[in-house]
Amino acid sequence: MTNEFNTLKLVQLGIDTQKEFVVFMRRDCHICKSEGFEAHNRVLVTVKEKSIIATLYIITDGILKVGKAGLSNSAWIQLNAVEGDKISFAHVQPVASMGCVRSKMYGQELNKIAFQNIINDIVKGEYSNIEIASFITACAGDNLNIQEIIALTEAMVDSGQKLNWINKIVVDKHCVGGLPGNRTTPIIVAIVAEAGLTIPKTSSRAITSPAGTADTLETMTSVNLDIQTIKKVVEKENGCFVWGGSIKLSPADDILIRIERALDIDGEGQMIASVLSKKSAAGSTHVVIDIPIGKTAKVRTEEDAEKLKYYFTVVGKALSLEVKVLLTDGSQPIGRGIGPALEAMDVLSVLRNEKEAPQDLRNKSLLIAGSIIDLANNQKNGNGYLSAERILSSGRAYEKFMAICKAQGGFKEPVLGPFKTDIHAEKSGIVVEIDNRRLAKIAKLAGAPHDPKAGVLLHTPLKTRITKGDILFCIYAETKGELNYAIEYLKKEQDIILIQ
Amino acid sequence: MTNEFNTLKLVQLGIDTQKEFVVFMRRDCHICKSEGFEAHNRVLVTVKEKSIIATLYIITDGILKVGKAGLSNSAWIQLNAVEGDKISFAHVQPVASMGCVRSKMYGQELNKIAFQNIINDIVKGEYSNIEIASFITACAGDNLNIQEIIALTEAMVDSGQKLNWINKIVVDKHCVGGLPGNRTTPIIVAIVAEAGLTIPKTSSRAITSPAGTADTLETMTSVNLDIQTIKKVVEKENGCFVWGGSIKLSPADDILIRIERALDIDGEGQMIASVLSKKSAAGSTHVVIDIPIGKTAKVRTEEDAEKLKYYFTVVGKALSLEVKVLLTDGSQPIGRGIGPALEAMDVLSVLRNEKEAPQDLRNKSLLIAGSIIDLANNQKNGNGYLSAERILSSGRAYEKFMAICKAQGGFKEPVLGPFKTDIHAEKSGIVVEIDNRRLAKIAKLAGAPHDPKAGVLLHTPLKTRITKGDILFCIYAETKGELNYAIEYLKKEQDIILIQ
Repeated sequence: MTNEFNTLKLVQLGIDTQKEFVVFMRRDCHICKSEGFEAHNRVLVTVKEKSIIATLYIITDGILKVGKAGLSNSAWIQLNAVEGDKISFAHVQPVASMGCVRSKMYGQELNKIAFQNIINDIVKGEYSNIEIASFITACAGDNLNIQEIIALTEAMVDSGQKLNWINKIVVDKHCVGGLPGNRTTPIIVAIVAEAGLTIPKTSSRAITSPAGTADTLETMTSVNLDIQTIKKVVEKENGCFVWGGSIKLSPADDILIRIERALDIDGEGQMIASVLSKKSAAGSTHVVIDIPIGKTAKVRTEEDAEKLKYYFTVVGKALSLEVKVLLTDGSQPIGRGIGPALEAMDVLSVLRNEKEAPQDLRNKSLLIAGSIIDLANNQKNGNGYLSAERILSSGRAYEKFMAICKAQGGFKEPVLGPFKTDIHAEKSGIVVEIDNRRLAKIAKLAGAPHDPKAGVLLHTPLKTRITKGDILFCIYAETKGELNYAIEYLKKEQDIILIQ
Repeated sequence: MTNEFNTLKLVQLGIDTQKEFVVFMRRDCHICKSEGFEAHNRVLVTVKEKSIIATLYIITDGILKVGKAGLSNSAWIQLNAVEGDKISFAHVQPVASMGCVRSKMYGQELNKIAFQNIINDIVKGEYSNIEIASFITACAGDNLNIQEIIALTEAMVDSGQKLNWINKIVVDKHCVGGLPGNRTTPIIVAIVAEAGLTIPKTSSRAITSPAGTADTLETMTSVNLDIQTIKKVVEKENGCFVWGGSIKLSPADDILIRIERALDIDGEGQMIASVLSKKSAAGSTHVVIDIPIGKTAKVRTEEDAEKLKYYFTVVGKALSLEVKVLLTDGSQPIGRGIGPALEAMDVLSVLRNEKEAPQDLRNKSLLIAGSIIDLANNQKNGNGYLSAERILSSGRAYEKFMAICKAQGGFKEPVLGPFKTDIHAEKSGIVVEIDNRRLAKIAKLAGAPHDPKAGVLLHTPLKTRITKGDILFCIYAETKGELNYAIEYLKKEQDIILIQ
């Protein structure tokens, strides 16, 4: 029921607020006044019979003319808005399922229906960010029992699409709290697929790091596949490497994870639900979970890791997933390149069995691939590692990798940016410390991951003996300006590679 | 340490995001790229050596030119920003006191220092809205024990300024969950001050209603006083009526309450801390709390009210506050006017002992004023009500009211808007239901509380016998356009006053 009286006309403002829907109105707008709207209110907005709930921000200056309203980019897309469209407004009732969140605050156990209602409302965009934060907090700590974690996981699986496979056994892997440059996935997929197992792998892009697995793979093949293409690739080659964002598995997870990250909360229950819901929706049956333990890793003690291991196993079983948990060394980064193309080169170097290939990356890939093979064969300590080693050394993993790339649209050799500078040692000695955080920052200043050819190549791992003037690392960039940003930053910084 | 490399120049965008600090940057800005900033990140921004933590929104369209950044109005004011100022950016570490919030999620008891750290960080603006939502959720339900409620209340008192008074006894009142038109405060202050008690009353403005107590009082006198003026007024006349926003008592409360309202969470612990921290900071010693019980009031059952009563009393005692709790009838609105000037007229009508004065408003004011007098005299069932009645009936309350107004800068008679329309009954019968929500909406469409002369005057309370053509209510407005908004809305609505 819209009429001139309670509508405004839309103008495009181009404001990115991530997944949160935001509507912008003028302070002196008659609708704001009559409805008593104020900044941060939740408002039901309707454009051409499509409605969403959005958070209201008030414009007090000249950005909006009288009679106009704006939307955040996500809301604009969601409503298929066109410049000049009429937009109408109404108050919203509080979301009904927030009642369940309130019950949880009072310590009540939630059942499956409660979690389904909450998750469905979150996926529909009916929760504001602060309501999501409230839900996450109410479920954090030890507040979810194992039945509730199972119910939450199932609700998250049900909220999106699910993949089905002909093969009875479908394998997958996941690493809890990734280390820099830890690009085992392409190698593992190639080995495991060559071993005859089905592994339809989805990966994420970088959010704050210089490269995600999907960014790395994209320098060699296309990762943006729809479900039909994924099916074809996997039917032909047993495996694939795809950007998870191109298909909608467990969409609630993407929304929750963003707020969890902002809150720096990583409740066990939600982490397990997050990981296993993606795996279950992807149609996996056997999953290896890698938990690196280390002081800069996500899991810091063996005790915490054992508890997580227990939860992963029990919740996995409830979802008909066979889960095997590996506790690994998380004290050092893995590989030498930082940035999509450079990390891809590390991967190819291992697959091609080159002499200078980073051995840490090779060993870890074999360990996980071997575990997957054993798990699928229902063997506790089988010969999975040996099989994996044989497949990799023989070059068959490399051939499989190339075949998958071909099926996904073709392989291309990763290329580095044309602008390069070498950073030399100012004294002699031994490398005793490497500041990965600042190396990552240099890679980002040089353009990674947006410019996939940009990044940092580390020449001197820990314990390398250095002579003054040796190259410590190289910086690559796609433009001279970006290379300069990185160099300018570097001028102010010291001891990124500490030599003693 | 700012230089051209990591600074942008500020432009004013005029975006009101309430208390939340927001910074706007372009998607293609080199700082966003190098720092890996994305929408919703928390960013430390610095302008002229003043820093705040702000939430980042990304501009993808033409609002910002290359090299420019914008701020929300609250951040602009906080940083004393001027168009063209340089602004620099840095990543922020997670707020340390969020660690305490996480402990609370795990069910640990927080001590006074923990609450002080959290509340101080919130007041400094270091918590994002989602972090505040997380804190509120972690403390909601039964999650705070009485020691924690006391510690939270004390931390909130300590976070702002405190008022001191010469008199040993300083009284105050508070209503939990106000009813429409419930303007007892001006009447109570006049009676109690005339009775010789010190009552430095602060009140709030409307947020979503057509009038707050401060808005109502502002149609008769100025309410925007600084602490020195308040002191002078109270020394001279024993009482005052001031807008609480003009002084900073318990500033944390203003921030928390906004998020609680948005979440529709009203945890007992926080509600008690909210009310009593304001009273303690105002220097009160004796406080009467009015808890209306009714199906549309905040407190719905006698049982809930009794529990609240217990908490108010015990926490009050820990803060050296004598608290008396009244449980009152919350089933009907009180008074006839809706809108600042109209509600002021109700107040004056009672103070002037006019025959047509709303008796419900008169009675409730006497009840509370009497309780305050008894409480201050340490009497359980004293003659406070009789004293109050005598002071009001004799005209002495009116004289005191005028004297306080004079001390605050002078009294003026409230004036109604020049545009008026009468709404007539379309049939005969008896008024069986009044939709206060829609009446309030009409008052807001007509301009209240922004235009204090606008509003709705109800002629026919419940059970009035009506003849077709009788006036049901009048609408007042300051402009013809606003009157038309209200009338246009009314055309589509039916049975706002239900006659049978």
